[in-house]
Amino acid sequence: MAEPILFYFDFTSPYSYLASERIDALADRFGRKVQWRPVLLGGIFKALGTVSLVKQSGQAEYSVRDFARSARFLGVPYVPPANFPVSTVAPARAYYWLHGQDCSLARRFAHEVFRAYFAAGRDIADAAVVLELAIKVGADGTALAAGMSDPAIKDRLRAETDAAIEQGVFGAPWIVVDNEPFWGADRLPQIERWLETGGF
Amino acid sequence: MAEPILFYFDFTSPYSYLASERIDALADRFGRKVQWRPVLLGGIFKALGTVSLVKQSGQAEYSVRDFARSARFLGVPYVPPANFPVSTVAPARAYYWLHGQDCSLARRFAHEVFRAYFAAGRDIADAAVVLELAIKVGADGTALAAGMSDPAIKDRLRAETDAAIEQGVFGAPWIVVDNEPFWGADRLPQIERWLETGGF
Repeated sequence: MAEPILFYFDFTSPYSYLASERIDALADRFGRKVQWRPVLLGGIFKALGTVSLVKQSGQAEYSVRDFARSARFLGVPYVPPANFPVSTVAPARAYYWLHGQDCSLARRFAHEVFRAYFAAGRDIADAAVVLELAIKVGADGTALAAGMSDPAIKDRLRAETDAAIEQGVFGAPWIVVDNEPFWGADRLPQIERWLETGGF
Repeated sequence: MAEPILFYFDFTSPYSYLASERIDALADRFGRKVQWRPVLLGGIFKALGTVSLVKQSGQAEYSVRDFARSARFLGVPYVPPANFPVSTVAPARAYYWLHGQDCSLARRFAHEVFRAYFAAGRDIADAAVVLELAIKVGADGTALAAGMSDPAIKDRLRAETDAAIEQGVFGAPWIVVDNEPFWGADRLPQIERWLETGGF
C-alpha cells in the first residue's frame, strides 16, 4: 500500500487553509490517505533566518490580494482575518492531543480551526476559542484543556516542527507525495498530475 | 480596445521563461496583445532589500527541483543552466534597441534568448552571444552592437526597471491584466480565468 501523503501546515497560513479544503478529496480520488501535520512556521522561519512572504519588503499588499483571489479561484470561502498572522501554538497542540485520541476527530477539528480563522473571524490564538471549536466537533473539553498543557504534547509540536525543518520544509503548505515535495496551494495541479502518473 | 497585457520579466528568471512560452498564445485566445518588458531583477531586489527565492535560506534545492518540474508540467523544454543566475543587462538592452526598430523582431529575439539560456546552455550574459542570437533571428548585428552601448538604451532599461518597482513589481514574471497584478508562472490559470470572466 502506498505511503500516506504528508501535509505540513500552519493554522495561520492562508495557502495552507486553501490546500486543507482540497487535499483530502484529491488524495481520495487516487485511493491515497493524507497525514496532516501542523507545525509552527514562526519556528521554521526563525531557524532558517527567513521571514514570511507577507513580511518581505514590498510584498504585503500583493500577498493580501493574492490570498483572497486564490480563494475565489478555488471557490473556498475566505474573509481576511483582522489579526494576521497569529500564534498557532494552542490549536496545533490541541490537534496533536486530539489526534492521539481519535484521528478523524482531529481532522474535523483542524477544518473547524481553519474555517473559524479564515472565514468566521475567530481568534484561534485564544485557547478558550480553541476549546470551544474542539467541543463543537465532539471533543471532551475538560480532557483537552488538560492535554494541551501536557509536556508531552508541547514536546510533540516542537519535535514535529524540528522534523519538518530537517526534511527541508521552509514554508507552508508543504505536501510530500512519495518523497516529492510540493510547496504551496498553487502546486495542487502538479500534485494531481503526480498522483495520476506516478511522477513526471 | 482593451489595454495590452504587461509582461515584466528577467531573462535569467526560470519562471519568466516558462511564462514566456505561454503568455502570447493565452492572450491571443482572448484577442489580447502582450507588451514584453525585460527588467533587471537584481536592481529590483537591491531597491527592496530582498533576495531571489533561490538565495533564501533553505530554498535553493527545492527551487532547482521546482523549476525543472514546473517546466515538465507545462511541457516546456528545460535544461538547468550551468551558471545561474547571470547578468541580463546585455540581452535586456538589446531587446529595447530591437524593439525600437521592429517589435516582432524583438519578440523573436526574446524567445531566442530565453531558449538559448534555459534549453541550449548558452551564456546570455555575454554580449557576443547576444549579438549572435539577434543576428540569427534577423537583426543587423553591426547596428545592434552600436545600439547596445547607446546611452539612451542604457537609460531605457534603468527607467523600465524603476517604473516596475514603482508599480509594485517585486519578482518575475509579473503580469498585469487590466490593472490586476499576477506574480509567477503558476498564476497562468488565474490569468486565464481573469481573461475569460473579466475578473473574479
